[in-house]
Amino acid sequence: MKVSELLIPTLRDDPTEAEVISHKLMIRAGFIRKLASGIYTLLPLGFLVLEKIKTIIRQEMKAAGAQEILMPMVLPADLWKETGRWDVYGKELLRLKDRSDHDYCLGPTHEEIVTDLFRKEVRSYRQLPLALYQIQTKFRDEIRPRFGMMRAREFLMKDCYSFDRDEESALKNYWIYHAAYHKIFSRLGLKFRAVEATTGAIGGTLSHEFQVLAESGEDEIVSCKVCPYTANTEKAEARESEKCPRCHKGEMQKFRGIEVGQVFYLGTKYSESLKAVYLDKQGAEHLAVMGCYGIGVGRTAAAAIEQNHDSKGIIWPQSIAPYTVALLSLGEDALVMQASEKIYRLLSEAGIEVLWDERVERAGVKFNDMDLIGIPIQVMVGQKGLQNNQIEIKKRRDGVKHVFPLDEVLKRVNEFLS
Amino acid sequence: MKVSELLIPTLRDDPTEAEVISHKLMIRAGFIRKLASGIYTLLPLGFLVLEKIKTIIRQEMKAAGAQEILMPMVLPADLWKETGRWDVYGKELLRLKDRSDHDYCLGPTHEEIVTDLFRKEVRSYRQLPLALYQIQTKFRDEIRPRFGMMRAREFLMKDCYSFDRDEESALKNYWIYHAAYHKIFSRLGLKFRAVEATTGAIGGTLSHEFQVLAESGEDEIVSCKVCPYTANTEKAEARESEKCPRCHKGEMQKFRGIEVGQVFYLGTKYSESLKAVYLDKQGAEHLAVMGCYGIGVGRTAAAAIEQNHDSKGIIWPQSIAPYTVALLSLGEDALVMQASEKIYRLLSEAGIEVLWDERVERAGVKFNDMDLIGIPIQVMVGQKGLQNNQIEIKKRRDGVKHVFPLDEVLKRVNEFLS
Repeated sequence: MKVSELLIPTLRDDPTEAEVISHKLMIRAGFIRKLASGIYTLLPLGFLVLEKIKTIIRQEMKAAGAQEILMPMVLPADLWKETGRWDVYGKELLRLKDRSDHDYCLGPTHEEIVTDLFRKEVRSYRQLPLALYQIQTKFRDEIRPRFGMMRAREFLMKDCYSFDRDEESALKNYWIYHAAYHKIFSRLGLKFRAVEATTGAIGGTLSHEFQVLAESGEDEIVSCKVCPYTANTEKAEARESEKCPRCHKGEMQKFRGIEVGQVFYLGTKYSESLKAVYLDKQGAEHLAVMGCYGIGVGRTAAAAIEQNHDSKGIIWPQSIAPYTVALLSLGEDALVMQASEKIYRLLSEAGIEVLWDERVERAGVKFNDMDLIGIPIQVMVGQKGLQNNQIEIKKRRDGVKHVFPLDEVLKRVNEFLS
Repeated sequence: MKVSELLIPTLRDDPTEAEVISHKLMIRAGFIRKLASGIYTLLPLGFLVLEKIKTIIRQEMKAAGAQEILMPMVLPADLWKETGRWDVYGKELLRLKDRSDHDYCLGPTHEEIVTDLFRKEVRSYRQLPLALYQIQTKFRDEIRPRFGMMRAREFLMKDCYSFDRDEESALKNYWIYHAAYHKIFSRLGLKFRAVEATTGAIGGTLSHEFQVLAESGEDEIVSCKVCPYTANTEKAEARESEKCPRCHKGEMQKFRGIEVGQVFYLGTKYSESLKAVYLDKQGAEHLAVMGCYGIGVGRTAAAAIEQNHDSKGIIWPQSIAPYTVALLSLGEDALVMQASEKIYRLLSEAGIEVLWDERVERAGVKFNDMDLIGIPIQVMVGQKGLQNNQIEIKKRRDGVKHVFPLDEVLKRVNEFLS
């Protein structure tokens, strides 16, 4: 894709309303724009990043055995009254009335809806285990939306719900999704920890938060250097530098983290209040045993930036970068443009996603914009280099420029990618 | 995918609430379920069909030069007040207040939002033409939601907006998207017409509706057998069997149609009220000239069914079928299951999407369910056939069973697909 054909409104200065680095950079680099408090438009680059995250989530959800569906966003009040959450849920639940004066809310989470679907459509133990998920726009009317996509009111979320015959099978599923989350955040190229968590308003008895490690994180956690044991410092059974209370081998290390996902073992909290039952082999009724598993898609993108940036801008992990290679044509010389176009075609035909900066702009503007946008590999084509049949390649992360012969560009780019 | 691993709650009888065939079949075949009036959950098969439609739309929107973004669903009132539509739009615009008592609405269409984005982010003639689109959940509080996905309150829509320097360029874009719509509905495998239309509440001076032809359609149209001229009968310049008033060659033919998309030349209606301007080469301000282009994604799926069904169920066009091949294991004989699994792997490895009905069910149940679901090709594996190393292949559309040697299954399926 050519830069001139994409809406990428980069800004020179930090927007005044942004407090955290990911919010600043997503606005400055032209990934998002604010429409109202906690409500954002995804511009083309922001949209691409979220699509990449969604694709990885989908692949791992499918591999774990979950089926994708799409539940509504506007939800009737009656199901929420049935579980009692219509009264318990605070003002974060945005309530509204339709033209017939019926009560609805905007879905902040979908336990009620999916459990209602289960009780109506699933009858037999043979249909279990069953896991349903969706990737959907949610709304939570936060009292203080802030930090851009980190704590928005309208946001994209992957929510998955599992139904099992009994506790044993449900716990097995819990750990399957726990493992799927490990795969997802690993594939997203993020450093993270699964943190033992309390279940809060969702209910249930077992939960882990998946936290992306970043100095700007709101949570302080300690994590064993050897085994997976990780907990919030105020709840941890050991402090920094102490021996791990679980494996008794590793030393506890302190981090700050950003919660991007959470898995819950729900038990029968919702199947009980909504009477979601199945029949066993003998025809006896049992409550389905549930789990639920969420990932904030936009927040994951924001957390990726909090973890991966420098003074010049974003440094996207390769798997979620909007493009893999930024191709910079430096100068408007016909030879530069011809060589660039050749490289653009060569890389594109090799299946590499290239963002080609072919604008009539000074080299400095292009360097700054491409560093800000944070595409992992930059290929620079300039008049001077071309005289020696040379181009430059730079990894955004280390910033070191390497000079290569023009005809090695594909080979060298592939080396940088592997 | 195995049938036993998917939630496909097929029903024997027509649901009482459904009036039209697509609504009946989408519920009976387990594609959708109603949550509230005009509000539906997409089950796995319904989700897959809509994804296929979305993919084709995306490819053609991209080819036409449009960039994908995602605007919010919850929209602040101020922009709607600026264009005057806050007062003009009736009760279909669902209004709500957030916790701070600010006015919002659920987005039924996004002219205000995208034009606001334009006026804030686009400055120069060099950035034009610009076309932005999204595929998004919309809400229109219809007074009488009905016909399932055909006239839902919450529905998935592709909406695209173009911005040009002048009328000439904008009209050129209009016809580019008009052509893109032709490609989209052709690739979806649908018989359709582009019908000259009035612009209604959206505004503008030129518009075409894209109507899928089906006897159950609400609109009556006449269409020239030779040139593209098509119009609603009450507005047409010629009646059925008369000579075409445009090309003077073809004869006018009568159809019924279902509107699934509409393209509008908007002119400066929204750029004027929102002051969306760009600067020309000399630095003089001009209003952007706009067009907008919508497709109802769910309604397209429903219209596809209205056009493609028989007494047994849905007959999906190949390009939007949830799976391409239904593999039916008839009988629980070990040989049948072994041969089926081999075929399942063979076809899957060849990149063919197979839904394998490996349930412990009578053959009759499987025949009925697979005919109801409407996957284009059925491969049947039975004990009797296997004794002669034979399987049967049937096109859902004509229902004719063909006997082939087992080892020709891939070759024969490919023949049926081409």
